[in-house]
Amino acid sequence: MQITILGGGGFLGRKLANRLAKDGSLGGQAITGLTLFDLASPPAPEARFPVRCIGGDVADPAAVAAAIPAGTAVVFHLAAVVSAAAEADFDLGIKVNLHGTLAVLQACRALGTRPRVVFTSSVASFGGGQDAVVPDDGRQLPTNSYGAQKAIGELLLQDATRKGFLDAVNIRLPTVMVRPGRPNKAASSFVSAIIREPLLGLSTDCPVPPEFAVWICSPRSAMEWFLHAATMDTAALGADRGINPPGRSATVGKMLGALEAVAGPAARAKVGFVFDREVYDIVAGWPAAFAATRARRLGFAEQESLEDLVRAFIEDDLAATRAERGL
Amino acid sequence: MQITILGGGGFLGRKLANRLAKDGSLGGQAITGLTLFDLASPPAPEARFPVRCIGGDVADPAAVAAAIPAGTAVVFHLAAVVSAAAEADFDLGIKVNLHGTLAVLQACRALGTRPRVVFTSSVASFGGGQDAVVPDDGRQLPTNSYGAQKAIGELLLQDATRKGFLDAVNIRLPTVMVRPGRPNKAASSFVSAIIREPLLGLSTDCPVPPEFAVWICSPRSAMEWFLHAATMDTAALGADRGINPPGRSATVGKMLGALEAVAGPAARAKVGFVFDREVYDIVAGWPAAFAATRARRLGFAEQESLEDLVRAFIEDDLAATRAERGL
Ligand SMILES: NC(=O)c1ccc[n+]([C@@H]2O[C@H](COP(=O)([O-])OP(=O)(O)OC[C@H]3O[C@@H](n4cnc5c(N)ncnc54)[C@H](O)[C@@H]3O)[C@@H](O)[C@H]2O)c1
Ligand SMILES: NC(=O)c1ccc[n+]([C@@H]2O[C@H](COP(=O)([O-])OP(=O)(O)OC[C@H]3O[C@@H](n4cnc5c(N)ncnc54)[C@H](O)[C@@H]3O)[C@@H](O)[C@H]2O)c1
Repeated sequence: MQITILGGGGFLGRKLANRLAKDGSLGGQAITGLTLFDLASPPAPEARFPVRCIGGDVADPAAVAAAIPAGTAVVFHLAAVVSAAAEADFDLGIKVNLHGTLAVLQACRALGTRPRVVFTSSVASFGGGQDAVVPDDGRQLPTNSYGAQKAIGELLLQDATRKGFLDAVNIRLPTVMVRPGRPNKAASSFVSAIIREPLLGLSTDCPVPPEFAVWICSPRSAMEWFLHAATMDTAALGADRGINPPGRSATVGKMLGALEAVAGPAARAKVGFVFDREVYDIVAGWPAAFAATRARRLGFAEQESLEDLVRAFIEDDLAATRAERGL
Repeated sequence: MQITILGGGGFLGRKLANRLAKDGSLGGQAITGLTLFDLASPPAPEARFPVRCIGGDVADPAAVAAAIPAGTAVVFHLAAVVSAAAEADFDLGIKVNLHGTLAVLQACRALGTRPRVVFTSSVASFGGGQDAVVPDDGRQLPTNSYGAQKAIGELLLQDATRKGFLDAVNIRLPTVMVRPGRPNKAASSFVSAIIREPLLGLSTDCPVPPEFAVWICSPRSAMEWFLHAATMDTAALGADRGINPPGRSATVGKMLGALEAVAGPAARAKVGFVFDREVYDIVAGWPAAFAATRARRLGFAEQESLEDLVRAFIEDDLAATRAERGL
């Protein structure tokens, strides 16, 4: 089985590549080749199968076609310009998030073999804000360009599925925490920073108040969902290729409570509150809770507790983050 | 006030151009210029103001920019590849309906004056089929490429509105009947044909059974809605730029009843029933009824009765259709 990860050099792309390398198989089938594609050629994990690493632009149809060779059974399409960056540069968001997804569609279609496409959409494709509990058939009324572009990507891949060009599962990821490394250009960057920075011994400012709620998941859950989406029987999805996976609704206060429970009050004391209007205006539009009944029925795994999530970050990523940042 | 109609040579584009020429003003402001843009340069109506007619492709950014000159206050974006055509040629649909709408967005944005954009989306952007009564916040789960592309156009223009590039009203038009002229490439072509062809003395086959229901409106209603969308205070819309206007749910049987009431049993007898799977598969996915409560509250006019609609066609379009088709 040949697999491609677009955005294979990013946070989740790397974790996925490592996971596939470790497992050596997907859905009971041996992996025979993995292509990792990102703006800069991504690092290759140690693996029993060949790993090709390619640098290129997902908005370039020829580059994407080269990254999805004949015989590719599964494409994970993770390449994206994230929320605050797409908000700051509208044209860049359109280019990567819209034209990029069109290029992925056409490359998959050209194979003629109907590959599975796992597309990472986002909670940001919904509006509703703090008070919303999004039902499984809730509509996407995004309040930011990134979310609009993700909703557009879903529509494209869903229609391409109906046409028989490919076989898409569009996962609307919650905010994934704890993200290793440095703060990034996602408006939700603070959700990881308030756990990661204190664990590194650093202070950080939270741009929203403690009672602010976020729909979150862990990288471990995201991996379970990606693998399930890649291998599930998609007949159960019918025409509706959008999945609201079973994340968890958590306030900033609860997250800090988990931090304190795992790492003590000194860690928690590293987090101050400095309101940031620009960040707030983006994230306040995102719904903080979902029903996620359909995804549970379809076999998407339940999210672990906040404390387990903090422990998982310490186990999986803290040392590497420390090293990366020279701490 | 300067106005542009993209798709100004089509069924509704021509009617709109004629209406603006007749009125001479829009929302109490004198019209100072009208640009009509279509693949082939559209015919100019008699008017008190200058009318520019341009041929070009809406997917060509330079052509669209030329059609939306500085000073344009209102753009009606009606240019589209319609349902059966977009289903038959996926790439053409993407080109015109997606890239075309992107070109419109960028041309309006380049003006820097936030023009009003009235975009004709469609009932086909919804799924649900015969049993659905779409609520005002119903989600768009299209079952055809045309509908997916319309939903994408809405997302683009809605986001561009939020960004302050333009000021969009996205009207999800019902199936407009009675369409003059010849049958066209819309899957819903039969909805007009079963009234128009008998009134021309011609026989026609209806591809769906008499109990099949359709969400319809008249061209007269569509014009009222276009003018209202062009002049209304859009602050009342908030972030949600989609309008489900108050059309009417009617079965084919009811439509034929109206035909008989206006034109007698001989007219009705011209309609036979020959099931067509391809047409049925497209239109059966479209919802046959909408709540349309929000649009009514926002001042969108009520649809006239089916009999009035048939009479309006006779009054407005029958003679011209007869002439056009040499009957
Ligand atoms: N991490 C989250 O909280 C979260 C939440 C919701 C959705 N998502 C989505 O999940 C996916 C992965 O997220 P992530 O956290 O790993 O993001 P990330 O930014 O770490 O990874 C995205 C990758 O895409 C690459 N990329 C950007 N532009 C590109 C281009 N033009 N050509 C090729 N590659 C390009 C980036 O270089 C980056 O490596 C993204 O699609 C993101 O939108 C993430
Ligand atoms: N008539 C209906 O029942 C109905 C229902 C729902 C939505 N709509 C929408 O309303 C709008 C007007 O509908 P209509 O019935 O007048 O359709 P129409 O087909 O008569 O008019 C559309 C016009 O767009 C033009 N066009 C197509 N491709 C183009 C291109 N590449 N560049 C420039 N122009 C191009 C066509 O030449 C045509 O004149 C369309 O957007 C349609 O999708 C119509």
